Amino acid sequence: MTDAFKIGIAGLGTVGTGVIKILTQNADIIAARAGRPIEIKAVSARSNNKDRGVDLSGFDWVDDAGDLAGRDDLDCVVELIGGSEGLAADLVRESLKGKKHVVTANKALVAHHGFELAKLAEGNGVSLNYEAAVAGGIPAIKAMREGLAANKFTAVYGILNGTCNYILTEMRETGRDFGDVLKDAQAAGYAEADPTFDVEGIDAAHKLCILSSIAFGVKPDFDALTVNGISHIDATDIAFATELGYRIKLLGVAQEIDGKILQVVEPCVVPIGSPLGSIEDVYNGVYIEGNFVETPLLTGRGAGEGPTASSVVADIIDLARGISLPTFGIPAEQLKELKPLDAGECDGSYYLRLNVLDKSGVLAEVSAILRDHNISVESMMQRGRDPEQPVPIVLTTHETRHADMIRAVEIIGALDFCVEKPCLMVIRDL
Amino acid sequence: MTDAFKIGIAGLGTVGTGVIKILTQNADIIAARAGRPIEIKAVSARSNNKDRGVDLSGFDWVDDAGDLAGRDDLDCVVELIGGSEGLAADLVRESLKGKKHVVTANKALVAHHGFELAKLAEGNGVSLNYEAAVAGGIPAIKAMREGLAANKFTAVYGILNGTCNYILTEMRETGRDFGDVLKDAQAAGYAEADPTFDVEGIDAAHKLCILSSIAFGVKPDFDALTVNGISHIDATDIAFATELGYRIKLLGVAQEIDGKILQVVEPCVVPIGSPLGSIEDVYNGVYIEGNFVETPLLTGRGAGEGPTASSVVADIIDLARGISLPTFGIPAEQLKELKPLDAGECDGSYYLRLNVLDKSGVLAEVSAILRDHNISVESMMQRGRDPEQPVPIVLTTHETRHADMIRAVEIIGALDFCVEKPCLMVIRDL
Repeated sequence: MTDAFKIGIAGLGTVGTGVIKILTQNADIIAARAGRPIEIKAVSARSNNKDRGVDLSGFDWVDDAGDLAGRDDLDCVVELIGGSEGLAADLVRESLKGKKHVVTANKALVAHHGFELAKLAEGNGVSLNYEAAVAGGIPAIKAMREGLAANKFTAVYGILNGTCNYILTEMRETGRDFGDVLKDAQAAGYAEADPTFDVEGIDAAHKLCILSSIAFGVKPDFDALTVNGISHIDATDIAFATELGYRIKLLGVAQEIDGKILQVVEPCVVPIGSPLGSIEDVYNGVYIEGNFVETPLLTGRGAGEGPTASSVVADIIDLARGISLPTFGIPAEQLKELKPLDAGECDGSYYLRLNVLDKSGVLAEVSAILRDHNISVESMMQRGRDPEQPVPIVLTTHETRHADMIRAVEIIGALDFCVEKPCLMVIRDL
Repeated sequence: MTDAFKIGIAGLGTVGTGVIKILTQNADIIAARAGRPIEIKAVSARSNNKDRGVDLSGFDWVDDAGDLAGRDDLDCVVELIGGSEGLAADLVRESLKGKKHVVTANKALVAHHGFELAKLAEGNGVSLNYEAAVAGGIPAIKAMREGLAANKFTAVYGILNGTCNYILTEMRETGRDFGDVLKDAQAAGYAEADPTFDVEGIDAAHKLCILSSIAFGVKPDFDALTVNGISHIDATDIAFATELGYRIKLLGVAQEIDGKILQVVEPCVVPIGSPLGSIEDVYNGVYIEGNFVETPLLTGRGAGEGPTASSVVADIIDLARGISLPTFGIPAEQLKELKPLDAGECDGSYYLRLNVLDKSGVLAEVSAILRDHNISVESMMQRGRDPEQPVPIVLTTHETRHADMIRAVEIIGALDFCVEKPCLMVIRDL
């Protein structure tokens, strides 16, 4: 048997302890697959006194995670600290400069600094692996960089945030409002104490940014993303969508059209029973369009100790096996600048929910505005009657120019009888 | 740029021409990803006069495919002839002996001779890649050998034959019988002129045998498989299953229980809306249970020119990139003999459809036999009345020993009033 592949782990939260558990419990089969044992030499975390349910006594304890970058006895540094700047970023940079492979689950870091890090890794003849950064246990990065590498990709769609998908599923099943369900999700550990990154779509956007880079051979460009979260989604919307045969999902959409790339994370309306419409609870899904493979879909748990650690360890096994790829699938210096496609340039059909005062003439005025913007209505529903009080109107449109839709909704939203910001969502047949 | 990676292709049917199309149309992106161009040097097929819709003029034509094994100018032989013996098997063996990598889509060959070929490949320092042999365009082999390699696998379940899934879907949607739908499927090109391999489950069994080998680190053992096809499935079964909230699917099931391995391909009853119950038409699905990743599911087109060729070319790109793995994920000499688990040792719940003469006392006699075999009935349906004529009775059971179930069904099937072989299917919550 060849020499052990030696790693240091920085960060011993859920994922870090999960990695130690896998490498311990599955040591034999992992060594057989990797062709050599994988040995944890050193670990680092903020506190050395915490009981994490794993035995750390066989590993060197390193107080300053940054010191892992300089150790001569490591083949690979596993960065599980998180955050796009500071300690995590410094550790990854220094490790790559020190010609050590890096495995990370840090989506923010890769989304914000991926190009710089890819150049660093490739310039130093080492790899930066980040399977766990996207869709937890689902081997989506491997599928796109390798398994589907024969294809020109035309689009990637994903349900990329388990917290949001869980909240939306719960809202539908219980009829409760967003805030209510969020509180329960926090209590159950499905949402963070500060849920902003999840519910505002930022976490999904980091992941989409990475997928987009691999799909289209462009430098990750987080700033080119349009991001909307789910906090404005109302129980009413969920109920209406269900009645219309749809589910509401927070979708990441990356599409290449005529050399420009659309990157958007937003709640969308998708048919019940469709591939992405069927993914519920904390599950994630990555739906890929390639010019030969057509539309494979990968689903599974998008977070949690076991699934995320499974991906981290798969990355380590790859390195131990000697598999080394360019960070984004093609050499960093060949990555192009992303030319963003504005959503305003795209066509689509839409779901629109208005909250309007129940009085005569409202529907006529709304209809006239839509007509004046070349928007053709596919269906319209007004439920409940309550003179002079707010009632919801929901309508769906045929294919429409996005810019027209936005302008019409702005005008409608500014009318006196419109008592709340209209809720507009793209309908996607996915 | 490094030297081109040079290949020879044997077999220019649907998949072979698909491979040429991909390598031509996507040449630039493939070269960028592989780090070098992929060059087709030679091709071979039975007829040199056929118009295949691709330009072959730039490649050497080789009359005898076997000659590709001896050419000095090839890094890799791509075997797309098919069949577990004869020309294909000889070509693969000779190519590996000649220290050439081999890429194949030949499931029968890998299922029947995988262990011998793995030893040959590894002994000669080359790779045998076969992503296209299982589930067409879905990167299932890569997921199991690499993306999920951190896990001990406990089970793999698959809808592995697109023809069967298409026929079962059509039967449900149209209410027509198997024979009828098969004829249409043949006309539409979804089924072969001789459909035996597909509809009798043999094709799915080849694929399951391969997945099982990777999952459990055992030598592929096709003879240890229990295989039943779908030709005995009746329109009545489909209708009853639907009414009970189920779909009928031809499932491949590989499960490790206490060191023994169950390998069975058979029609099963799965809940509507469940991960595998939702996969319809020609789509395939591979549902994997790992001890950390939990249950990822990969779906996509399981056959056809584009998807299958996509996997062949992905295998070629891997080799061009220098990625080389043991054939079944661990070194061949470490593969264990498979200890088969007999289905009779397993528990399960069941769907049973009887065709019985409509006369008094029948239900009492059936119920008594079930009781005497410790089989607890979960639901029972008898639809239609037609005194002294055959009518269907359908029942589902609670968890039952398989051997008990088989014995009870044998006794019931032999009774005078039972006018047709009973249809028994396992219910699987997948």
